[in-house]
Amino acid sequence: MQQKLMSSVEAVHFTGTSVRLLDQRALPETETYLDCATSGAVAEAIRNMVVRGAPAIGIAAAYGLVLAAREAWALADGLPARTDFAARLAILAASRPTAVNLHWALERLERVLPADENDVATRLLQEAVALHAEDLAANQRMGELGAVYLSPGERVLTHCNAGALATAGYGTALGVIRTAWSQGRIAEVYANETRPWLQGARLTAWELLRDGIAVTLLADHAAAWAMRQDRIDWVIVGADRVAANGDVANKIGTYSLALAARQHGVRFMVVAPCSTFDLGCPDGTAIPVEERPAEELTRMKGQAIAAPGVQVWNPVFDVTPAELIDVLVTERGCVEKPDVARIERLFQV
Amino acid sequence: MQQKLMSSVEAVHFTGTSVRLLDQRALPETETYLDCATSGAVAEAIRNMVVRGAPAIGIAAAYGLVLAAREAWALADGLPARTDFAARLAILAASRPTAVNLHWALERLERVLPADENDVATRLLQEAVALHAEDLAANQRMGELGAVYLSPGERVLTHCNAGALATAGYGTALGVIRTAWSQGRIAEVYANETRPWLQGARLTAWELLRDGIAVTLLADHAAAWAMRQDRIDWVIVGADRVAANGDVANKIGTYSLALAARQHGVRFMVVAPCSTFDLGCPDGTAIPVEERPAEELTRMKGQAIAAPGVQVWNPVFDVTPAELIDVLVTERGCVEKPDVARIERLFQV
Repeated sequence: MQQKLMSSVEAVHFTGTSVRLLDQRALPETETYLDCATSGAVAEAIRNMVVRGAPAIGIAAAYGLVLAAREAWALADGLPARTDFAARLAILAASRPTAVNLHWALERLERVLPADENDVATRLLQEAVALHAEDLAANQRMGELGAVYLSPGERVLTHCNAGALATAGYGTALGVIRTAWSQGRIAEVYANETRPWLQGARLTAWELLRDGIAVTLLADHAAAWAMRQDRIDWVIVGADRVAANGDVANKIGTYSLALAARQHGVRFMVVAPCSTFDLGCPDGTAIPVEERPAEELTRMKGQAIAAPGVQVWNPVFDVTPAELIDVLVTERGCVEKPDVARIERLFQV
Repeated sequence: MQQKLMSSVEAVHFTGTSVRLLDQRALPETETYLDCATSGAVAEAIRNMVVRGAPAIGIAAAYGLVLAAREAWALADGLPARTDFAARLAILAASRPTAVNLHWALERLERVLPADENDVATRLLQEAVALHAEDLAANQRMGELGAVYLSPGERVLTHCNAGALATAGYGTALGVIRTAWSQGRIAEVYANETRPWLQGARLTAWELLRDGIAVTLLADHAAAWAMRQDRIDWVIVGADRVAANGDVANKIGTYSLALAARQHGVRFMVVAPCSTFDLGCPDGTAIPVEERPAEELTRMKGQAIAAPGVQVWNPVFDVTPAELIDVLVTERGCVEKPDVARIERLFQV
């Protein structure tokens, strides 16, 4: 499974007794790891964005559920083990609202819960390991499938971080960029800084530079101007949830980029494994959009950066309607001009 | 000239011997003033953004030229006084490239240079004081003219700071917002934080809260999502230079907002005094767009906020084509759907 430009970054690692997370709040200054030894600690780490990115959240939650099983069957707090387990699962499920991979991973593990009560954690661990490996394979497959769309020398803009840090280790949007770069298809990568959490400036730039891929940072709202000046051929982003009709929830600002891309004839690619699809959501209006604390906008590294007392509106995702998306890349194949029927066909294959 | 909601903020003040600038780099934490006692110090303060905003830059430069005249006629450095004066003027003119008010103010003062060499600085000071007072009057007139477009209860989004801090004291975009607010026409003001310099978070929010106008801060790229969710009726911004055809250079991100506004049926107003028009620029392609240092994006309050070594593209203005502008408000009147002919008529009145 090794491949040119395989990233050396590992966002989530199961040690056997704990979920080890690369603390993304501290990047790029320091590369520190947080060991979560309980399912509650994993839920809190997801909530606090120690780990972020829809697929990485799913993987972390899966290992968190392994810990939950161990806790429930070993320690159950006066409750029947299955009831205790369900309560721990609910805490994990509530840690972030928008990324559906979290729910997908938990449901996938629930489905393999064995009847034999002695064996629960072992069986869940097998499934978590499989899910983790499959995510990496899916990323590499999506990299190949997506890269084909780029012609040599094209200029790519990405938003937020949909890289190794957000997944099992290769990236969705950055997986396509890694593969296309290694094939000489990319002349330039632009990364939006991605306010308020600066995933682009802190994580994407760090991850790409580490792999020797040149990257240019810009203010998020400069992207439309870059397009107007003919600096961009493709926008390539990941996703937190894809509805049945192809509407895509992703980091706030994605919708603005998609509008600008369409206005300038810039193509728009979303790269997301099938685990990110929520066929139970008919369209984007059914996707819950998380709002996060004001402090993400008003403070930076412990210092105030806004006028005291100002109100804040901080939605951290938005929904891009399917009609603004040129191609949706999944590990099962690509869906051009996504709509209900084409996505249905993808899942029937 | 006092009026309800007159702002108490004074960005530029001539003490008689120096140009006193409210240091906008230090806001909102501290309200400190920088006294510039030489024309060179004024040029440097403009370059370093102690003072910013097209009209305020023009006023500061005008007073700076008064100091230049005193220096040239009192101190001329071995050169004929007029040659020395011209050199000092050139340094002021080169301090920022995009805002045309700077050049407009310097040219206006040059035009009144008296033949009598004893009287130069006095005559220039009269003109600078007149220009300063006219800017305040223009702002208040624009406030009245622009406010008429708003219906009671509308929701307004602004970008950057086009307020008292950017002008003689009432504001262009914020002048309209102040007047409309006092007339009960505005239900809600949203301010984009305005990366990289955070003029929205630091200056606009501070200035509006100080005057008791409630304001909600959002990430710049969240604005399109706010429009999609029907939270915004008007975008109201200032300008750094308006071309003869109505194309508008303004803070980076304005173009992105204008594109999104048109897509959502949100109306787009630009508020700019006639001093901001450059009829020598046939259209926006002739307007120079300043790029500023990488550090504006990679550092915040002395700390790194991006991956070390990342390249940066930091254009701090962009150009919004006239066809995306619903109304251009000037002190001479309003130009709906601006184009060459309509702007020509405005200046013939």
